[in-house]
Amino acid sequence: MPDAVSLIHVKRDNARPLTGPEIGWLFAAYAAGEVADEQMAALLMAVYLNGLDSAELRAWTGEMIASGERLDLRGLDRPSVDKHSTGGVGDKVSLVLAPLVASCGAAVPMLSGRGLGHTGGTLDKLESIPGWRASLGNDELLRALAGVGAVIAAAGSGLAPADRRLYALRDVTGTVESIPLIASSIMSKKIAEGTGALVLDVKTGSGAFMAQREAALALARTMVALGEEHGVRTRALVTAMDAPLGRAVGNALEVAEAVAALSGDGPDDLMEVTFALAGHMLELAGIDADPRQAIASGRALATFRRMIAVQGGDPDAPLPAAAHRQRALRAPASGWVTRLDARAVGVAAWRLGAGRARKEDPVSYTAGIRCQAKPGEYVRRGEPVLELYADDPARFGPAEEALDGALTIASEPPPAAPLILDQVGG
Amino acid sequence: MPDAVSLIHVKRDNARPLTGPEIGWLFAAYAAGEVADEQMAALLMAVYLNGLDSAELRAWTGEMIASGERLDLRGLDRPSVDKHSTGGVGDKVSLVLAPLVASCGAAVPMLSGRGLGHTGGTLDKLESIPGWRASLGNDELLRALAGVGAVIAAAGSGLAPADRRLYALRDVTGTVESIPLIASSIMSKKIAEGTGALVLDVKTGSGAFMAQREAALALARTMVALGEEHGVRTRALVTAMDAPLGRAVGNALEVAEAVAALSGDGPDDLMEVTFALAGHMLELAGIDADPRQAIASGRALATFRRMIAVQGGDPDAPLPAAAHRQRALRAPASGWVTRLDARAVGVAAWRLGAGRARKEDPVSYTAGIRCQAKPGEYVRRGEPVLELYADDPARFGPAEEALDGALTIASEPPPAAPLILDQVGG
Repeated sequence: MPDAVSLIHVKRDNARPLTGPEIGWLFAAYAAGEVADEQMAALLMAVYLNGLDSAELRAWTGEMIASGERLDLRGLDRPSVDKHSTGGVGDKVSLVLAPLVASCGAAVPMLSGRGLGHTGGTLDKLESIPGWRASLGNDELLRALAGVGAVIAAAGSGLAPADRRLYALRDVTGTVESIPLIASSIMSKKIAEGTGALVLDVKTGSGAFMAQREAALALARTMVALGEEHGVRTRALVTAMDAPLGRAVGNALEVAEAVAALSGDGPDDLMEVTFALAGHMLELAGIDADPRQAIASGRALATFRRMIAVQGGDPDAPLPAAAHRQRALRAPASGWVTRLDARAVGVAAWRLGAGRARKEDPVSYTAGIRCQAKPGEYVRRGEPVLELYADDPARFGPAEEALDGALTIASEPPPAAPLILDQVGG
Repeated sequence: MPDAVSLIHVKRDNARPLTGPEIGWLFAAYAAGEVADEQMAALLMAVYLNGLDSAELRAWTGEMIASGERLDLRGLDRPSVDKHSTGGVGDKVSLVLAPLVASCGAAVPMLSGRGLGHTGGTLDKLESIPGWRASLGNDELLRALAGVGAVIAAAGSGLAPADRRLYALRDVTGTVESIPLIASSIMSKKIAEGTGALVLDVKTGSGAFMAQREAALALARTMVALGEEHGVRTRALVTAMDAPLGRAVGNALEVAEAVAALSGDGPDDLMEVTFALAGHMLELAGIDADPRQAIASGRALATFRRMIAVQGGDPDAPLPAAAHRQRALRAPASGWVTRLDARAVGVAAWRLGAGRARKEDPVSYTAGIRCQAKPGEYVRRGEPVLELYADDPARFGPAEEALDGALTIASEPPPAAPLILDQVGG
């Protein structure tokens, strides 16, 4: 019979891959309290530094899925397809994409987590809509999917509970940024939610979790392989996250921008990423439809409104607005914006109150940033590039500090930079 | 201010050495419960895999020393010098060496731990003497040192308590076998005990913790440097541990062999190692004396008897003997013993009851093994090379399994193998 210290030794020494039965024993013993948190922490660090090969990762992910329930969406009258983003600044794509793809005939079971750090969380954004609630029981979820076609909700505690516990442990033990551990965490939840197909938006650049494109590509490949191995048709796009996506960063601000996008008035970069992802989702779902037409016809917006209403939200209620506004990041010279650092803007929005440092922290729905100018646009000397919003004006100072050096102005416009960098799978 | 996750990241990524203040914060926060066991476990694995440089190790060891009291032996009327062995099979050198060197005029403050695994612990051996107790208060310790000159006792809980906690954590997290962590664990306790000089016996070979000579040498160099940095004159010998040292393995059996050695009747290999270590100890202590003469005159044995008596032991009481004996490991052919595997003999003695698997387990004082033949000696076909002793005859079977393949017989005697392999320092 395996024991924890022996398995830690195997991974620590990179002696050989852990076997499926060993990984199965490990998860069972961890769940039973026979493997302690400190033992799992040591193993996670060894995994961080020595990796998991594809067979180990398949078994590891399989144990995370098997630790909980797996939803069955095959009873729906349409194909299911989901999207997951690794997180970016101003990334409100889910809010647009879920109703958009649903309005084209797919079921989109988008079970999601909370935001942590400088990238926002989809649930936090939707909670800025008066009355909207994130938690749904499995029955409610299936009813919403059958009725509206799209649901964005909190992943229930029954889905991959081993991932929940491991993620909390990784968070405090410095073992978050590991490609196999990230891949298994994301994919275990997506596979357990029962989606038939999945498109991944793996962000890369200063505002992304994976700053380096090669690392983002490796993560994309790892996740696509995991999805396919578990019977989920999976594709990934690697997309640029060097500047905020769209102009709004912050919960209610992003909801407003998403509604504008669904109304046909979305910013170009947001729409480019949204339509690219929608195209792949529809293709994987086997649906021949034009997402642009779904927006132009108003069907996507109507689906969004029903999706909000079904979870108690009032789509006609005004969104909350911040008490204070401050202009920031004035252009030091007239010229073209060549860089507006996504990470700096994300950290500033976080400091304004839009994000949380610890998972038990509350977020402000109104805090955030609007970008008056983005890369490729011309600004005059002294013109503020950002508008900051906060309920507490004491937050403006620390936010502005985060923005130091975030802007680059040049006398020539920057070359066109592609947003969609790579495709994996399909 | 540092935080645990950031320090883990630094070590995980091998980004730069941790600073002294960072290591100081880490130990203080761990003691205060602000750094959790799982965080320390992840850091220990990162240290295991990425190492500690000499400045980090000096600071790390310094924090372990500073976590408790540091004894002051400078009030004694003679120089203090200690010996520490990394542990071997049949290694009863301490029992002979402490009274021997004390009888030559040094003070030997030998504070020791318990045995774990297949190597025995000095305290376990002495506890087989009726009445003897391992625990002494600091006052008793100093009185014994002043009176007898040698004391072998349990290291009190006040010495390097951070090491005690870290060692327990390393034991369950697969992070024991790390040269910097072993070196800091050993040296923090030896420096805290206040000895003015120290000779290290770093064992290498099948029966040693460090099977590879290069690793043993690296550990020896690391410990000598740490000792010198903290003001303790330190030397190390790397010695062979391929076969049991002497003929006795097991607690009371080893005490009897040590008494024989102190009476001038010790096995050659045991005496060679003992005299080599004694010579270095006396040289470091600045004492010009002949340890052979101390044995021949009976002074060393007299000191042993007083050392035992001062801790409640009766040096005249008969040692306990096992209820059952079994001959084992019969020679498959007549010839010369060229190999008697130390590790196999150690594991067999452990299974007979001489050692413990967990630190809370009891040990049997009587269980053990006597080697009737050792490498370099001639045996006849069918002759048993070992005698096994146990209180419970059910233990003979598992012990004999451990001995499978432990013996090699050849038609020629083996070449003479040196016991003292390397010297570091001095």
